[in-house]
Amino acid sequence: MADTQSVTILPLTAEAFADYGDVLNAKDAPDVMINQGLCGRHHDRAQMICDGGRLGVSVFDAVPRDLPYQLDLMERHPLGSQCFMPMTEHPFLVIVADDDNGKPGRPKAFMVPPHTGVNIHRNVWHGVLTPLFSPGLFTVIDRVEGDGNNLEEHWISPPYIITE
Amino acid sequence: MADTQSVTILPLTAEAFADYGDVLNAKDAPDVMINQGLCGRHHDRAQMICDGGRLGVSVFDAVPRDLPYQLDLMERHPLGSQCFMPMTEHPFLVIVADDDNGKPGRPKAFMVPPHTGVNIHRNVWHGVLTPLFSPGLFTVIDRVEGDGNNLEEHWISPPYIITE
Repeated sequence: MADTQSVTILPLTAEAFADYGDVLNAKDAPDVMINQGLCGRHHDRAQMICDGGRLGVSVFDAVPRDLPYQLDLMERHPLGSQCFMPMTEHPFLVIVADDDNGKPGRPKAFMVPPHTGVNIHRNVWHGVLTPLFSPGLFTVIDRVEGDGNNLEEHWISPPYIITE
Repeated sequence: MADTQSVTILPLTAEAFADYGDVLNAKDAPDVMINQGLCGRHHDRAQMICDGGRLGVSVFDAVPRDLPYQLDLMERHPLGSQCFMPMTEHPFLVIVADDDNGKPGRPKAFMVPPHTGVNIHRNVWHGVLTPLFSPGLFTVIDRVEGDGNNLEEHWISPPYIITE
């Protein structure tokens, strides 16, 4: 059982993550230079979705986790995307999964490198926010109000063990 | 001339900044604890405005500035708010001004403390993004597309000198 429940963390790439969300960082070349050439604008890097309701900006302050990490819960948001941008220069862990008949399939774990955020697409199964260093502060852009149930949870037993 | 053009940087408080925008940080107590009590959600901290068009998430990579800082340009965005959230743990400078018959009045400069961002309200005069440390990386949430002119600039001569 240990082998099948063990998931190795992969490096994050936009290609590997494309089915689940967007990778947001400063690219090699900005889309446009602004402010008299002193600021590179890497423009509109996320596919933001908000089905009804309203997008807003929140601050999440999460307890850092240790590796190996025990994954016993995944969730998804049917009505909107959810963008996590670090407010520190630390890497963090993101876990996603394909849907398998209404529940998460085998998860994939990625290490988000420093200076990088992720936007998880609407209705994509993902683990909760998992910083690895303190403070676990993130800017979060998601659907902050609106009708309907925007949270679906799935508990996993036995848990997956996410390892380096 | 030097005296009248000199502006001393003030500490940022939500109260002092209220006429210009929002201060976004983790408050003493979160609005709600999520993720089995391991994450504080400081919810919906900014008055986001997008008049037509669409809100999006971009990454800005700005050259750090030195103090004293010479302010020769202010700008405002008639069609939307603009939220700057640091991707580092460094403080940064934000400069705003009241409107004075279609041009910026005397500016106010604030030092944004670590772990804090600002959302500049629609049509508020402000200086360009001014990090003081490298890397000058920010998550920016603003109006990324739409009709109409969303940028008004005003050049200032002689410049203001922003000092500690």
